[in-house]
Amino acid sequence: MNRRGNIVSYRPDVKVLDATIRDGGLVNNFYFDDAFVRALYLANVKAGVDYMEFGYKASKDIFSPDKFGKWKFCDDEDIRAIVGENNTDLKISVMADVGRTDFRRDIKPRSESVIDMIRVATYINTIPAALEMVEYCHELGYETTVNIMAISNASIFDLDGALDMICQSNVDGLYLVDSYGSLYPEQIARLTEKYLSYTEKAGKFLGIHAHNNQQLAFANTIESMSFGASYLDATVSCMGRGAGNCAMELLLGFFKNPKYNLSPILSFIENYMLPLKASGVVWGYDVPYLLTGRLNRHPSSAIEFIRDQKTNYADFYQELLDRD
Amino acid sequence: MNRRGNIVSYRPDVKVLDATIRDGGLVNNFYFDDAFVRALYLANVKAGVDYMEFGYKASKDIFSPDKFGKWKFCDDEDIRAIVGENNTDLKISVMADVGRTDFRRDIKPRSESVIDMIRVATYINTIPAALEMVEYCHELGYETTVNIMAISNASIFDLDGALDMICQSNVDGLYLVDSYGSLYPEQIARLTEKYLSYTEKAGKFLGIHAHNNQQLAFANTIESMSFGASYLDATVSCMGRGAGNCAMELLLGFFKNPKYNLSPILSFIENYMLPLKASGVVWGYDVPYLLTGRLNRHPSSAIEFIRDQKTNYADFYQELLDRD
Repeated sequence: MNRRGNIVSYRPDVKVLDATIRDGGLVNNFYFDDAFVRALYLANVKAGVDYMEFGYKASKDIFSPDKFGKWKFCDDEDIRAIVGENNTDLKISVMADVGRTDFRRDIKPRSESVIDMIRVATYINTIPAALEMVEYCHELGYETTVNIMAISNASIFDLDGALDMICQSNVDGLYLVDSYGSLYPEQIARLTEKYLSYTEKAGKFLGIHAHNNQQLAFANTIESMSFGASYLDATVSCMGRGAGNCAMELLLGFFKNPKYNLSPILSFIENYMLPLKASGVVWGYDVPYLLTGRLNRHPSSAIEFIRDQKTNYADFYQELLDRD
Repeated sequence: MNRRGNIVSYRPDVKVLDATIRDGGLVNNFYFDDAFVRALYLANVKAGVDYMEFGYKASKDIFSPDKFGKWKFCDDEDIRAIVGENNTDLKISVMADVGRTDFRRDIKPRSESVIDMIRVATYINTIPAALEMVEYCHELGYETTVNIMAISNASIFDLDGALDMICQSNVDGLYLVDSYGSLYPEQIARLTEKYLSYTEKAGKFLGIHAHNNQQLAFANTIESMSFGASYLDATVSCMGRGAGNCAMELLLGFFKNPKYNLSPILSFIENYMLPLKASGVVWGYDVPYLLTGRLNRHPSSAIEFIRDQKTNYADFYQELLDRD
């Protein structure tokens, strides 16, 4: 395996995607006020961030708008209320989950939308359905990606077939997603090489989306990048489900490319993230997430444990082990 | 560069050193009560930890015992009050700073002490003084190490000479120390190879001591290990100066060697670390530490910023940049 570029250079193919509202919305049911989202948008523009993901494109038939904030649905007019016509270099993405999006009804042609990219999130066993969405969105003019979630639980027998199928589609990019925060940098490096062996031949980009259960989200992101991933997900203050994600402030600090600026993100943390945390919204690395990550489990039991303000970590660990 | 072992095996040469009291003591001036230290000792024994560092061997002529807890000085009788004759497989270490230890007066022969190993902490420009202490302690029967601090600030022209000098001594091991938490895994890997090119020829072991300014302490520790470092420093709940260290609970979770057990450490966190944090002792990853780490500065200005409960991160970053 060979690293690309070196630690004092930069790779012009690298793009940074801010997923704060989308992955962070899983923490607060997408109830961000407009001032927060607008300030984040402006900070991202100033910081040189390449994409900002505003949330999910979920079906209102499946999820009630009474129970979730508007960024669960990302109606075009709601995004426009923040960005106008978005006359900036920042592109806008939304995520669409397989089976939870009424894409034929809710996604209109790109020419009528401020959205630039649609990222289709799928498990490995629903890739044909994901590709149906990809082709539909591609036809409408969008950039598209397939994000295979929970890859640490996928069978090694399924992975090659999945990568091959995806790379034969019209998708623009593919994402390596460590949903459970269970992978170590060495494993991320090997998976990156595996994914690249398909994406490069097909002329598609590779992205990485990491979780911080073992305090490895940043390390895994730069490890994957150093072996060739170019689209990097990050969230301000790591905000995201459970242990959260790769911190935008760490990632921008790492870059040598002068297009990226850390200061606007630091100001955003001070003025918006600290008040959000102080209001009682809880996320970030903690012992229960380390345990589910280390055991390659969905973080749901850890989220519940923390919500219930429990601290009997050794019991929790034993319970997780007993579930094997 | 070649990795050693693989992710499902384990290396029998690996040893874990718990530095919670020693590096953590820098946060609370070494005021740990005996119940805390005894519980940590028992947890380490049960967890299979190889060494426990009880603190510094500082000179009472330089530091007043009125201003620091007893673990700044590590009198033999204070350690014995915790461990008795230490009839366990856990070895005991202390750290001695060059120029701050009256080693000829305060360090007695190993046969009269419960201490097994003395780690000499030095900057690169005081290595001859460090080696004088090493030879003295070696003569007294101790295992010894040299820990070159702040290596990220050392001149590349000095490093080879320093490593060569150390490896010609009677020291048992050498530590790679990222005092400022400024190094990335790729850099740690290269430094590990550099250090090993000297230590292996001389039959000495290599250790790694990481700081968590950029959430890389654990990643850097396992990266260094995978290239050949064998003595790994960790602290429970990352407790240590500023952003703290590699978390013991992350490190033990990583190991496949059945001699290590995570549960005793989880119980210790619940019963002792959470109350310590609740009492107002502050450490751990935070934005100001990321900034000093990224800029390769001593964490003191970040420690002060946090102690003063400031949050104007963008101003702080600008101030750090202006100091260049």
